[in-house]
Amino acid sequence: MAKSKQVYIAVIGAGGVGRHFLHQLSILSTNYSHVSLVLVSRSSKCLFVEDFHHTLSFSTWENDLSASSQPILSPQEIIEYLVNAPGKCVVVDNTSNQTVADSYASFLRQGINVVTPNKKAFSGSYEAWRDIFSAAYSAKNPAGGLVYHESSVGAGLPIISTLKDLVETGDEVQRIEGVFSGTMSFLFNNFAPVEGKGGKWSEEVKKAKDAGYTEPDPRDDLNGIDVARKLVILARLAGLEVESTSSFPVQSLIPKELESVKGGEKFMEKLSDFDGQMEKVKSEAEGEGKVVRFVGSIDVARKDVRVGLELFEKGHPIAALKGSDNIISFYTKRYGSNPLIIQGAGAGGEVTAMGVTGDLIKVLQRMT
Amino acid sequence: MAKSKQVYIAVIGAGGVGRHFLHQLSILSTNYSHVSLVLVSRSSKCLFVEDFHHTLSFSTWENDLSASSQPILSPQEIIEYLVNAPGKCVVVDNTSNQTVADSYASFLRQGINVVTPNKKAFSGSYEAWRDIFSAAYSAKNPAGGLVYHESSVGAGLPIISTLKDLVETGDEVQRIEGVFSGTMSFLFNNFAPVEGKGGKWSEEVKKAKDAGYTEPDPRDDLNGIDVARKLVILARLAGLEVESTSSFPVQSLIPKELESVKGGEKFMEKLSDFDGQMEKVKSEAEGEGKVVRFVGSIDVARKDVRVGLELFEKGHPIAALKGSDNIISFYTKRYGSNPLIIQGAGAGGEVTAMGVTGDLIKVLQRMT
Repeated sequence: MAKSKQVYIAVIGAGGVGRHFLHQLSILSTNYSHVSLVLVSRSSKCLFVEDFHHTLSFSTWENDLSASSQPILSPQEIIEYLVNAPGKCVVVDNTSNQTVADSYASFLRQGINVVTPNKKAFSGSYEAWRDIFSAAYSAKNPAGGLVYHESSVGAGLPIISTLKDLVETGDEVQRIEGVFSGTMSFLFNNFAPVEGKGGKWSEEVKKAKDAGYTEPDPRDDLNGIDVARKLVILARLAGLEVESTSSFPVQSLIPKELESVKGGEKFMEKLSDFDGQMEKVKSEAEGEGKVVRFVGSIDVARKDVRVGLELFEKGHPIAALKGSDNIISFYTKRYGSNPLIIQGAGAGGEVTAMGVTGDLIKVLQRMT
Repeated sequence: MAKSKQVYIAVIGAGGVGRHFLHQLSILSTNYSHVSLVLVSRSSKCLFVEDFHHTLSFSTWENDLSASSQPILSPQEIIEYLVNAPGKCVVVDNTSNQTVADSYASFLRQGINVVTPNKKAFSGSYEAWRDIFSAAYSAKNPAGGLVYHESSVGAGLPIISTLKDLVETGDEVQRIEGVFSGTMSFLFNNFAPVEGKGGKWSEEVKKAKDAGYTEPDPRDDLNGIDVARKLVILARLAGLEVESTSSFPVQSLIPKELESVKGGEKFMEKLSDFDGQMEKVKSEAEGEGKVVRFVGSIDVARKDVRVGLELFEKGHPIAALKGSDNIISFYTKRYGSNPLIIQGAGAGGEVTAMGVTGDLIKVLQRMT
């Protein structure tokens, strides 16, 4: 194997996940000394080296970025910037930005590698998905860049790598089922705990919001779209040509009457009027000795993908989940009646960044 | 990235795991057309191509191997054979053979990559471990071969890759705990189930033996050494310099009086005389509302490694395990109070082979 050559890293997004990623990268760079940080950007600021013999500083990048008066580069301009680098490049997109996601295929076609937790590119139209993976490196397209997106499902949990291994080694994935949202996990583990009563639905949503577990407008979690996006990604990796998040049933937990209410605060005020709906579901579950959870599932043979409420026996691993943990079960031919299960925190800046950094390591290893 | 060049694969061990591996490799080779199978061996037979422009056949290797009159090659002779290959090589060791394990460092020093489920090389002396990893590829030693051994712990479950990711991305692994033996899992899930009574200890051992879940002499499972070997591997990956399986407490479930009894059959006959010992443990656990399980644990900060019986609350994931599943929990600084958990079948030819094939894919990807 040849000796490592310099690799140039451009980081788009330096907020929650991005800041943790840069911290992890600074630790990593002590072992991977051939890594140069050349660009960091966030929504309103951009910082980059003009000369690729220089690198940005891991210790002062945050102040340097704040003080920067360099122009903000569009994805296209970042490509034009990076093609001048005297070696291989990796773009790390820590945003959830659609425009950046839309440019992955262009990055990859230029041989620029892409690492990201951004779900948008992989859960958009099937055409966009095909575009990305036909631009990416393969035996037929050796000039393409590599693309890794472990943290787009389950944050740092090894979900995507495991599914890829199952498929690539010839196992038959029959069903994937799980709790894919830290917010939904937290809400239901408290609303309908295995032991005890749990609070009223609107109160649990408020608690989750106050604890920072929801988006500013909790409807952005309750509509189920975040979970649906993750299922699109997994279903495609399992071989299903899912067109988009609208091609299968996604149950929204937003009462119809509150869909068009303006603003998260207004929504929260009115939510308690509808507590009866969720209370009914909970007591029906209790009547059967079960609990209700918000899950996603993919039945590969039946091409059936769905997101919504389901009831589980109290001894089921999905019922026994704690905190805001995710759990994902892979039922496959090889694993038989007991699935391969992966469980743990599926949200949060630090564990999401870990998945991104882990992906970067894999890319760096494949470039040496 | 350069276009893929031919890669030559030598497979040592073509029994249970080996046969499944070769089947998976034949599927894989439709996507990785640059892979040539050049050598297959089992204890008493060896089959290899004399000219590296030829390859062995995936459809007839088994008959060809039976009919082969080629000499059996020692590991040293396999090295001498492979250094003549006109490209990169991978040795896949599907045995649990000590002699083959002892030769990994020699393979790696010649730039030959090693992929294996064989625990022996990684759980022997710390010096042997250091020897392997100083011979392996690194930034300082770019001429060394790569070494992957996912299936040495938990078969195809992503245990080793996950631990490596946690460590390499800078997480602090605090504790690792779990059920690491399919045999022990099966025994205790039946002997002391969460619901119900379970059978007598000696009866459960007999059932497990009859179902093929134990070694021919069940003492080879009951002595705890298999679990201890896996803990040595994980502890070392977590940064502890564990000298060997004898440097920490390993509880054997073989009654002292039966340690020197000759032969597995004799042992089985006499085991029921000692059912009282295990019954006592079970009823003590029940008295506390718990169940007993055979687990391994590593406390990284305290450098404390141990293998043996422990009691668990009935709601604990380790208590709720089913069949012969493994479960491994990683408690880390990032994951906080809820560990990252991986669970599923941790033994069996097909899932073990999957871990090996997955490793081979990673090696192939790093060679393109």
